[in-house]
Amino acid sequence: MQRLLNKPENYVDEMLKGLYAAHKDQITYINDDLRCLVSASKKKGKVGLATGGGSGHLPLFLGYVGEGLLDGCCIGGVFQSPSAAQMLEVTKEINSGAGVLYIYGNYGGDIMNFNMAQEMADFEDIEVLQVIAGEDVASAPKGMENKRRGVAGIYYVFKIAGAAADAMLPLEEVARIAQKAADNVRTMGVALTPCIIPEAGRANFSIKNGNMEIGMGIHGEPGIEKGPIKPADQIVEEMLLKILEDLPFENGDEVSVLINGLGATPLEELYIAYRKVDEVLSKKNMSIIKANLGEYATSMDMAGMSISLLKLDEELKKYLLMPCNTPFVVQK
Amino acid sequence: MQRLLNKPENYVDEMLKGLYAAHKDQITYINDDLRCLVSASKKKGKVGLATGGGSGHLPLFLGYVGEGLLDGCCIGGVFQSPSAAQMLEVTKEINSGAGVLYIYGNYGGDIMNFNMAQEMADFEDIEVLQVIAGEDVASAPKGMENKRRGVAGIYYVFKIAGAAADAMLPLEEVARIAQKAADNVRTMGVALTPCIIPEAGRANFSIKNGNMEIGMGIHGEPGIEKGPIKPADQIVEEMLLKILEDLPFENGDEVSVLINGLGATPLEELYIAYRKVDEVLSKKNMSIIKANLGEYATSMDMAGMSISLLKLDEELKKYLLMPCNTPFVVQK
Repeated sequence: MQRLLNKPENYVDEMLKGLYAAHKDQITYINDDLRCLVSASKKKGKVGLATGGGSGHLPLFLGYVGEGLLDGCCIGGVFQSPSAAQMLEVTKEINSGAGVLYIYGNYGGDIMNFNMAQEMADFEDIEVLQVIAGEDVASAPKGMENKRRGVAGIYYVFKIAGAAADAMLPLEEVARIAQKAADNVRTMGVALTPCIIPEAGRANFSIKNGNMEIGMGIHGEPGIEKGPIKPADQIVEEMLLKILEDLPFENGDEVSVLINGLGATPLEELYIAYRKVDEVLSKKNMSIIKANLGEYATSMDMAGMSISLLKLDEELKKYLLMPCNTPFVVQK
Repeated sequence: MQRLLNKPENYVDEMLKGLYAAHKDQITYINDDLRCLVSASKKKGKVGLATGGGSGHLPLFLGYVGEGLLDGCCIGGVFQSPSAAQMLEVTKEINSGAGVLYIYGNYGGDIMNFNMAQEMADFEDIEVLQVIAGEDVASAPKGMENKRRGVAGIYYVFKIAGAAADAMLPLEEVARIAQKAADNVRTMGVALTPCIIPEAGRANFSIKNGNMEIGMGIHGEPGIEKGPIKPADQIVEEMLLKILEDLPFENGDEVSVLINGLGATPLEELYIAYRKVDEVLSKKNMSIIKANLGEYATSMDMAGMSISLLKLDEELKKYLLMPCNTPFVVQK
C-alpha cells in the first residue's frame, strides 16, 4: 500500500484534524465530535443545507460546506454512513428557523439514517425536506432511476441549492430547485484501478492490469463493461452517448460539464477527456456554460474519471454561476 | 499503464486543446502554437510575467496564467523545456511597455532557453529580468543553494509576483519582491511511486513496493533517503526539520504552508500530513497565515507529496493574500 498514513484506524479523524486546522476560518465542528462539521459563517433566517456520507471521497462531502454552499455535514468512517444522531445534531445547529434541506446520495445506509434524523428533527419542530441524488446512468436502467447511485453529479445539486438558499428562498423553493438540478444531471464513470481502504490494507475488488471497468461505482460497485483499456476518445464517446440518450439531452441544449478525477488520474487526462466531450457536444450544437475539471468526488487512490452533464434552464444557470467560498470551491 | 489517453505522442496537444476549450474566457494561445499560452485579460502598462517548463506537472505551469497571477507561459513536451523562440513570442505578446519578468525553475534546459529568449528580447528593446526558483532542500546542501531544483514552492513566487505586478509596481520592484519570495521558501518532498511518461510507456525509475524515497525530484531525480514507508507523522517531522533548519525558520515566525500532492496521493493524506505540520509549528509558536493543500506541481501519476514553507514579512503577506483568478487558483 503506497500511502501516507499513521494508524489506519485514525485515518478519518487525523484527516479531519488537518482539515479543521487548515480551514479554521471557514469550518468548525460541534459537540466535540469531529465528524459533525458546520460552516463558520451563519446567515440568519436562511434555509440550512446539510449533507453526509462516508469518508474517502474528498472533497465530497465536507469540502462543500461554506459560504454560498452547504451549512453542515456529517461523515462516517471510510465508505460508511454517519449516524442519525449525528445528523440530528447538525440539523439542530444549522436550523435558524427556516428549516433544513438534506441532500445526499442514493445509498441504503444514508437513506435510513437521514430518514431517522428527519423524524427526530420533526419532534424538535424543525421542518426537514430531502433531495436524493442518484444520477449514475450505469447503475440502473432508465425507468428505474430511483435505484441509481449518487456520484460526482451531486456537486451540481449542492451548488445550485446552496445558491438558492443563499438567495434567501424558502425551504420549499430551495428543495424544488435542488430537485430540478438532481433530475437534470446524469453521470457515468470509468475505473482503471481499485482503491485501498486503509483499515483493510488491500483492495476489496480488482481490475486486471491493462483493463478498465466502465460504470464502476465510487465504492467499487460493479460496472457494465469490463475489458482492455480503450483509447480515451472511445471511452468518452461511449459514456457520453449513454448520458445523452438517457435524459435525453437534445441538440441545442445548454449544459454544464463536470469531469471528475477519481483520485489517482492525472489532471492532464481529464483535459484530454474534456477535449472530446467539447467536440461531441459542439457537433450537436450544445453550448457548455461552465466546465468543471478536477477532483469533486474521489475514491482515494482509485484511477479513473467520471463525466457529468447538467441540462440548464435559466433558473439553474443563474444559481450555478452565483459566487461561493468553501475550502474546496471558490467561485467569483 | 492504467491511464486515459489516445496516441501517447498527442498527449500534450490534446491536453492543451481541452484546456483552451474549458477555459476559453481566461486563456488563449498565440501564433497558432498551442504551447504558447497567454492570459485573455490584459492590463495596460503592467509588468508582464512569464513562466515555462515541461508538461506533465499540471496545474504547473499553465494553470497559473490569469488575473492577478501570470500573463504567459510556454510549455514543452512531457518533462521537456520549451524553446527560446516560443518564449520570445510570449514575451513580445505580454510586454505592454513595462518589461517582462521570467520566473521558472532551476533546470539546465529551462535556464538555457530563457537566457536565449532574454537576449533575443533585448534586440527587440524589451527589458527582461529573471527570478529562478530553486527551493528543494533535498537537492543540494546549504551553501549550494544555486544547485537546488525548483519544485512546488515556485507557486509562492508566482502568486506574490503576480500580485505585485497587478498592483502596477515597476519591473525592478516586481523582480525584487519575487526574489524575496524565492529566497524565503523551502520545500521537501517524498515519493511513493514513480510516474509513467506516456510516450515511454513505463517508469524511468523505480520505487519498490512498500518503499518510499524522501527528497526525490518531480522528474524522478534521486532523493536522499530510500527505505520502507514510515508512518506519515515521522515522514512529516523529518522533512519539516530539514526545511526549518535550512532557512532557518525561527520560533515566532509567520509562515504560509503548502502541502502539494504529486498526483496520485489522496487529498485525505495531505490533510493528515498538514495536521502534523500544524502541530509542530504550533509548538514553535509559529503562525500559519494561509494553508494551501492540493495539487500544485504534480508528476502525473506519481504518488507522494511535498511540504513547502514560506517565511512571511508584511510585504510578502500582503501580496500573498491579494485576490487572483486563473483556471486553477481563485482567491477572493
